[in-house]
Amino acid sequence: MKIINIGLVGFGTVGSGVVKVLQKKKKGLEQKTNCEFKIKAIADKDINSPRCVKVSKEILTNDVDKILNDPEIDVLIELIGGIHPAKEFIIKALRNKKDVITANKALLAEEGEELFRIAAENKREILFEAAVCGGIPIIKVLKQGLLANKIDSLLGIVNGTANYVLSKMEENNWEFEKALAQARKEGIAEADAALDTRGIDSRHKIAILAQLIFDADIKLEDIFCQGIEDIRLEDLRYAREFGYTIKLLAIAKSFKENTAGVYVYPALISEECLLSRVKGAFNALSLKGDMAGELFFYGKGAGMLPTASAIVADLGEIAMSTVHSPQSTVSKTKLEIKKIEELEKSYYIRFLAVDQPGVLAAIAKILGEQRVSIASVIQKERKEKEIVPIVMMTHYAKEKDIQRALREIDKLPIVKERLAVRIEE
Amino acid sequence: MKIINIGLVGFGTVGSGVVKVLQKKKKGLEQKTNCEFKIKAIADKDINSPRCVKVSKEILTNDVDKILNDPEIDVLIELIGGIHPAKEFIIKALRNKKDVITANKALLAEEGEELFRIAAENKREILFEAAVCGGIPIIKVLKQGLLANKIDSLLGIVNGTANYVLSKMEENNWEFEKALAQARKEGIAEADAALDTRGIDSRHKIAILAQLIFDADIKLEDIFCQGIEDIRLEDLRYAREFGYTIKLLAIAKSFKENTAGVYVYPALISEECLLSRVKGAFNALSLKGDMAGELFFYGKGAGMLPTASAIVADLGEIAMSTVHSPQSTVSKTKLEIKKIEELEKSYYIRFLAVDQPGVLAAIAKILGEQRVSIASVIQKERKEKEIVPIVMMTHYAKEKDIQRALREIDKLPIVKERLAVRIEE
Repeated sequence: MKIINIGLVGFGTVGSGVVKVLQKKKKGLEQKTNCEFKIKAIADKDINSPRCVKVSKEILTNDVDKILNDPEIDVLIELIGGIHPAKEFIIKALRNKKDVITANKALLAEEGEELFRIAAENKREILFEAAVCGGIPIIKVLKQGLLANKIDSLLGIVNGTANYVLSKMEENNWEFEKALAQARKEGIAEADAALDTRGIDSRHKIAILAQLIFDADIKLEDIFCQGIEDIRLEDLRYAREFGYTIKLLAIAKSFKENTAGVYVYPALISEECLLSRVKGAFNALSLKGDMAGELFFYGKGAGMLPTASAIVADLGEIAMSTVHSPQSTVSKTKLEIKKIEELEKSYYIRFLAVDQPGVLAAIAKILGEQRVSIASVIQKERKEKEIVPIVMMTHYAKEKDIQRALREIDKLPIVKERLAVRIEE
Repeated sequence: MKIINIGLVGFGTVGSGVVKVLQKKKKGLEQKTNCEFKIKAIADKDINSPRCVKVSKEILTNDVDKILNDPEIDVLIELIGGIHPAKEFIIKALRNKKDVITANKALLAEEGEELFRIAAENKREILFEAAVCGGIPIIKVLKQGLLANKIDSLLGIVNGTANYVLSKMEENNWEFEKALAQARKEGIAEADAALDTRGIDSRHKIAILAQLIFDADIKLEDIFCQGIEDIRLEDLRYAREFGYTIKLLAIAKSFKENTAGVYVYPALISEECLLSRVKGAFNALSLKGDMAGELFFYGKGAGMLPTASAIVADLGEIAMSTVHSPQSTVSKTKLEIKKIEELEKSYYIRFLAVDQPGVLAAIAKILGEQRVSIASVIQKERKEKEIVPIVMMTHYAKEKDIQRALREIDKLPIVKERLAVRIEE
């Protein structure tokens, strides 16, 4: 039986999970892959704190170079996160002819181009199933199961924390801050949750997915990114009245030949569509292949065991595939990026405005001047001279026109607050 | 570039789809796999009727042996369906050292054990992504993406025709026959739809999935199978009043060590769960892995291009994997089968009974005697001496007790019709 020697860098929650799965599933994995997966060394700053798994002391080290320079180690599993020194470790491992498995979405999104080039030069693989939607094997699905497909569109809920917050707001009638506090309490959000709630983590993930489905380099700065921090409980309530819910979506869309758009923004989605049913910290992807048609995948996006499941599947791929996937050596597609300003969208807009005669007329006038037509309006509360919400849904309009109209409306002294959310069909 | 020579047997809709995809996606597939997929011969009884694709006349033949005996052909794609002569073709191809790709679910369900043994003896692959849930790459997900997982349970809507019929009944307030007629009109059901509506096709598919997830031989006769032909429109209506819908489910469940149950039956499922949202001819699978947790996959189960997409993905697997997957050589697990009589279930039961004093008491008495307790009852219409529906939901009870009670109730002369449907949590 072939032995695959593994060097693990980062012995935190996920790292312990990988060790746990490899220990617990040893026999089954050997039968399925005809390989023995042997953890030869584990490097971490802290090698003394207790973990949920037992490993021999001899394989623990503070010195990553013991892994990177060991010619017997076939695979580096990188689980420290962040750009540096993870990038340098991976490059050194590739140059030393090791395959690399990583869960480092930020690194792949920001430095993927260089890393994949170095991997190709060294005829090594970088596998990253764990970097996007943990328990859902979406990377393998895209690379293998949907091999024959051009992906026309992908809409994803790829950040469990943001989805948890929006779900809790909706379920429990909580405002954003209370839902976020609960997420922190349950260990779903970190103390600093900005990466999640501002869409930055979703942007990393959709960058990785878009690179894969368009076979092109996607720069992070080409991905429009808007978070969920301005969504109020009342927005979720109004959305529901119209038959919608609000989700933070990561979107990759193919337009005409070699033009694509990649975006992250909160959107109203119909309660009829499966994505609207994704609650709590779950992830999901709704996609359209030109051959397979409509597809939907749902599962856990994070957590020790779902992430370890993805990493071990990558080990299986290394064990069972031909050494080097030709995909990564192919010259990339030159992709034209469709900016968000070039889209046409319908919008949900909620104003808080002083309730006085003519306020709706003033807003409607500006929208009309910018060729934005209103599909429906709700103005429930009537409290003369007080601030009340006005909610409207627009017909399709050009993003540019909508944004111009909103900027004009924001100047009206009677309008005290305004939120505009795209509607995704 | 490596050339993979293909022999295609069966040039119908799916066969034409495969040719179409290979022609249309030629360049992309070569880039992704570093292989050229070349259709060297196509065998069919009818090689004269026009198809949706153009192929050179020289590659068409009536003689399957030209494919099976051609040493240059690497892969047989079998698309004729049925047991004979498909089985003999596949065996001959394996013995002549060809890998086999097939969409033939009946054959794999009935004769899979022998075929996979012959494949292993000849160190060849049988790949069958297209046999189950066409466009959803569930076979690769189970074999590769979820490699580290024991699948604790799988609930699937794996027959698009049956799901279409139930969906249309619900959406349009149609009875079964009318919905089935519409399915025939739209080409979703064949003239003889018994394979679909009686659950036989679902049984084939769950046999294949269960063999894969339990790594064991599952006999068709060990799979309890019940269809949807007795479901009436009113059952869907009552189910909805309780917050449920009715779906034809294919189920594989792991119980204690080496015990599993495989079943096909219509079931009430909560409107909260994703499976209840699967409408029309779509397929979906809800599963639980011991590492990845809860997962859900949704897509097209049939059709020319989704099926061709699956077959081409199998070609990709042959191109990119090591020649022989060790999985199929491993000695199978000895599995104890949990019969349906051994389950505990709650039930939806609808009676048509003569409306006279004491009818509910008579039914309730029998249920009570068999230790089946009633959770709720609806008896809406009251028409003295006429036949009216009585609908009840039971608490959990042993299947044996339920069945015994129902047999007793069926003997009551006041009960004119009775339907019992399991509730799946």
